[in-house]
Amino acid sequence: MKHERNIYLSNMALDEAISHYTNACASGEIALGEEVVTTVEALGRVTAGPVFAALSAPWFNASAMDGIAVNAASTYEASERRPVVLNKGKDYIIVDTGDPILDPWDAVIMVEDLVDLSEDQVEIRAAISPWDNVRPVGEDIVAGELILPAYHKVTPIDLGALLSGGINEVKVIRRPRVAILPTGTEIIEPGQPMEIGKIIESNSRVFEGIVQQCGGEAIRLAPVADDYPLLVDTVRKAAQSSDMVIIIAGSSAGTEDFTSRIVAELGEVFVHGIALKPGKPAILGKIGHAPVIGVPGYPVSAWVVFDTIVKPLLYTMQHQRPLERPTTAAVLSRRLVSSLKNLEVVRVKLGKVGDQLIATPLNRGAGVTMSLVRADGLLEIPQNSEGFEAGMKVPVRLLRPLEEIESTVVVIGSHDLVIDLLADQIHTQWPDAGLSSAHVGSLGGVMAVVKGEAHLAPIHLLDEATGEYNLSYVKKLFPNFSGYLIKGVKRTQGLMLPKGNPKGIQGLEDLTRSDLRFINRQKGSGTRLLLDHSLKIRNMDSDDIQGYDREMTTHMAVASAVASGTADAGLGVRSAAALSGLDFIPVGDESYDFLVAVAHFDAIPVQRAIEALRSEVFKQKVLSLGGYGVEGCGEIISIE
Amino acid sequence: MKHERNIYLSNMALDEAISHYTNACASGEIALGEEVVTTVEALGRVTAGPVFAALSAPWFNASAMDGIAVNAASTYEASERRPVVLNKGKDYIIVDTGDPILDPWDAVIMVEDLVDLSEDQVEIRAAISPWDNVRPVGEDIVAGELILPAYHKVTPIDLGALLSGGINEVKVIRRPRVAILPTGTEIIEPGQPMEIGKIIESNSRVFEGIVQQCGGEAIRLAPVADDYPLLVDTVRKAAQSSDMVIIIAGSSAGTEDFTSRIVAELGEVFVHGIALKPGKPAILGKIGHAPVIGVPGYPVSAWVVFDTIVKPLLYTMQHQRPLERPTTAAVLSRRLVSSLKNLEVVRVKLGKVGDQLIATPLNRGAGVTMSLVRADGLLEIPQNSEGFEAGMKVPVRLLRPLEEIESTVVVIGSHDLVIDLLADQIHTQWPDAGLSSAHVGSLGGVMAVVKGEAHLAPIHLLDEATGEYNLSYVKKLFPNFSGYLIKGVKRTQGLMLPKGNPKGIQGLEDLTRSDLRFINRQKGSGTRLLLDHSLKIRNMDSDDIQGYDREMTTHMAVASAVASGTADAGLGVRSAAALSGLDFIPVGDESYDFLVAVAHFDAIPVQRAIEALRSEVFKQKVLSLGGYGVEGCGEIISIE
Repeated sequence: MKHERNIYLSNMALDEAISHYTNACASGEIALGEEVVTTVEALGRVTAGPVFAALSAPWFNASAMDGIAVNAASTYEASERRPVVLNKGKDYIIVDTGDPILDPWDAVIMVEDLVDLSEDQVEIRAAISPWDNVRPVGEDIVAGELILPAYHKVTPIDLGALLSGGINEVKVIRRPRVAILPTGTEIIEPGQPMEIGKIIESNSRVFEGIVQQCGGEAIRLAPVADDYPLLVDTVRKAAQSSDMVIIIAGSSAGTEDFTSRIVAELGEVFVHGIALKPGKPAILGKIGHAPVIGVPGYPVSAWVVFDTIVKPLLYTMQHQRPLERPTTAAVLSRRLVSSLKNLEVVRVKLGKVGDQLIATPLNRGAGVTMSLVRADGLLEIPQNSEGFEAGMKVPVRLLRPLEEIESTVVVIGSHDLVIDLLADQIHTQWPDAGLSSAHVGSLGGVMAVVKGEAHLAPIHLLDEATGEYNLSYVKKLFPNFSGYLIKGVKRTQGLMLPKGNPKGIQGLEDLTRSDLRFINRQKGSGTRLLLDHSLKIRNMDSDDIQGYDREMTTHMAVASAVASGTADAGLGVRSAAALSGLDFIPVGDESYDFLVAVAHFDAIPVQRAIEALRSEVFKQKVLSLGGYGVEGCGEIISIE
Repeated sequence: MKHERNIYLSNMALDEAISHYTNACASGEIALGEEVVTTVEALGRVTAGPVFAALSAPWFNASAMDGIAVNAASTYEASERRPVVLNKGKDYIIVDTGDPILDPWDAVIMVEDLVDLSEDQVEIRAAISPWDNVRPVGEDIVAGELILPAYHKVTPIDLGALLSGGINEVKVIRRPRVAILPTGTEIIEPGQPMEIGKIIESNSRVFEGIVQQCGGEAIRLAPVADDYPLLVDTVRKAAQSSDMVIIIAGSSAGTEDFTSRIVAELGEVFVHGIALKPGKPAILGKIGHAPVIGVPGYPVSAWVVFDTIVKPLLYTMQHQRPLERPTTAAVLSRRLVSSLKNLEVVRVKLGKVGDQLIATPLNRGAGVTMSLVRADGLLEIPQNSEGFEAGMKVPVRLLRPLEEIESTVVVIGSHDLVIDLLADQIHTQWPDAGLSSAHVGSLGGVMAVVKGEAHLAPIHLLDEATGEYNLSYVKKLFPNFSGYLIKGVKRTQGLMLPKGNPKGIQGLEDLTRSDLRFINRQKGSGTRLLLDHSLKIRNMDSDDIQGYDREMTTHMAVASAVASGTADAGLGVRSAAALSGLDFIPVGDESYDFLVAVAHFDAIPVQRAIEALRSEVFKQKVLSLGGYGVEGCGEIISIE
């Protein structure tokens, strides 16, 4: 091929890479320096040194109550039996909370303990001691006292203490300025005209957000094409004018992956290639005083490298402890096999079903941003492990509060667009509740409910003997299962075809044509069962169908394959075809219902899901998708 | 007295007050409405509706690898024994990750699987299937798919998914505009000239910070004096132009407490007076569509009301679940007595000593901001409880991460300014470590170490028999105690007197003079023991000393009392006198050392404290205070 490639990256263990890099950066060179801000601006900033009070608070003796200020000696004779009468002006003055107590007064009697005799006289029935009900100077803060230590992140209440202590300016650590440079000839800015081969640049915006949340100042640079001299120039300037440089993409070993060469030319590369998945082709270097990190272009790889390496470094630069996510134990719902070559970070959905917290792995692809958007936690498979078995207890680092996860209804089974609508409906009705779904097909869903790993399994299982959906299938498969079938929607399955049906497909019978490429759903999905059943009654052989082995896990993915021209036909629901602008030939109507075990039927998340299914708003939204029937939606059928 | 007071507030239980008020506000009237922002601006905002993808990502079939794009059919014959040669241009093109895979290509062979024959020829030794190593359209996001549900707070990674899904604008819930109105004739702005009776306004700045952190927009209004018509006018305008109004101070029953009347005049008061300590005189009302909350002026009361009532309301208005602080169990180090009249929120310091998390109550005064600044957690004493006994396990809501608390050295005992310096030194050397201190006097400190509630007890205990400090005293008191004494500092105790010594005090003998008011330290403090010992050897009677019963718990508090003129003399260390600009008559030198039990000596926080004590930086800072000796500081003496 003879084009410059650099295929041999190192495979340094993550811990080793981090400690190697931390040492390389720890020379003190990367210190941020200080600046002075007004106290009000100091919220969220980090103190550069200890802050001592300039004033006492209160700075005069002040009444702690509403009442009257007296000289305590004038009350010594008072008792229940021998009340003492005090005269305004001579023996007392009226004070409100916070009023100064000055000579000759030295104590306060609260209003509740006074008997009003006239406008100028009160009676008291108990003596008080000097300084009773008086806040002494410095009760809160004494001048000279430490208000905040060095390297402390200023909270709202700290502002109150600083201002009360006479501190109107604070020396804080300068915010780290982080230059973020998107690179690549293929990237375009959001909103620019789309061209085949162009990718919308989004990583830099994710990093901007994280940098802000870490207390840094993000400086997003204009994207630069894969032009070596231009890149060198841009990176040099960025390193001179900021405290850290993030170079997005170009970190791998492709023909136009320049990042490593550039960093080496301008500074030093300490690590190139980490035993981390996703995230392997990361570059950890330094140019002058600035740490420079080359981050892979795949969004999940990019996020993992940023989260694992850049974020802790940002905190360390600010003398802050890197935030650790709380860890909890969860039961793994599926087997996870991983390579011994690297540590793998798997995104998981979590849900509390009964007493168990269940972790369901999401798509492990480095390019699947949605796996992070939808994730409730991160599961690490250590480098020396080949993975975990289903049912094992595994440690999960939480991305959401556990309470939120615990009020989530866990839906595992067949995919349909109405699941999105249901999720939205639940979250809208109960802001603290949600729906988490995994698409494993109808049979996988039934298994998840039987094993207690899901609250609800959305299923559409055709009993070939009876032609009936779901109920008889489940009864046949698990005669001892005890639970309920919650009626969902009626929907139409059919062939999804490119707009205009250019190949003139008439029906399932055409699928064996040699000029057609089919795209299939995964084993165990109701749609796959429907296809196989339909082939069987037509005496068709799946071996004769090109593409029968190419599997997708959702209706939308099948529609997408047809729409993009990589397949000529696929089986799926009408709504998916409609959304993707495809032609549609109906094959049959089916029932898409929800299975629930008796043990979890009463659980709040399940009851909320049923209420949502029954709501008119939800039904209207389903109908507006087209291709659905909602009669009986939310009805409950007992299975014994 | 015949001035308008309104002394009878209700005492509604907190839960009742909140649910009463929530119902009054839940009419939907307080909805915030929506606005459209660019996706990049949407970070941290709350989606107003579900967001569906406009574009698929990727939106063309793309190479998942660096390598060559081929037509899979051309590879079917390839095997280890019979490699196949492919020709550039005809059989393949070179592709980088992300490049489009267009007709006639339908698969990618990765660079690692190629043998380069020439610039235009490669050899392959395995067949591949169509669409191998190709990211299909929609692998990440399929157009039409739900990216984010309604009422979801947008995270950095969400930005990536939105932009990739072709979403450049997002409909979000409008930020709640919160008007914050400081009131009171006595308040001044920070930096304005100080006058007796004036208080620096700081609550509004604390609230601004909290509102920002809750996603709201804080509008701080200029402070308004206690002028009824002006207040009415200001509050009316604030309610018209914002989503919530916070009125600071004036909520109680004093002569100038107008808030309740104003809210009732302009709208409705639902609650005035809550069984909450601190925080009782809160007002919960509504004017037009805007919730209006009257918050007491004492800073801790103000914070508690804001945290307990305003913050959850702000979250609810944004359809967000109010953030709950994690709760943990801790062992209470001191008895806490509370009234049955109200729920009390006690600020506590936490520390992990051995296996136990220890909670030490901080100052319970409603005006002591520093109790919140220094707090690690909040302990609620329910309204129906009279308090907790020392040693009980109590639930504590955490204000700091538990890991941070666990790396804190717990110091309970005598107070000295060097403790602040030590805290600062530890936090500077190890940003993730800290020092938590409680000032209970030397004897209290010894007890805490013996009971395993503190790592270190700073003590200065004079053994009257030997004249020696600390070691012999501890041995006599606890003959079976096994541990170490870590040498601290030498310091000088003496009489602190007003500048210039206007009353001509010569020494301790003068304290019985009838024209002198003394201020004392609390029982169990080393300074109190020193005083009592000094009186004894002088044959003086404490009954003859005016003010002997008036107790302060720190040197600085005593100095402050003398400086403010409420006492004519107090006993304390030279550094406190110097900081407060007082005269000083030395009474004696003493050793201020640290006691540690053998069980905790090896704990990391203890070892760090010792290292900090030995550091030159620390010693120099101590010396610069004046009145200290640092010889032997950090030396260890075994106690068996």
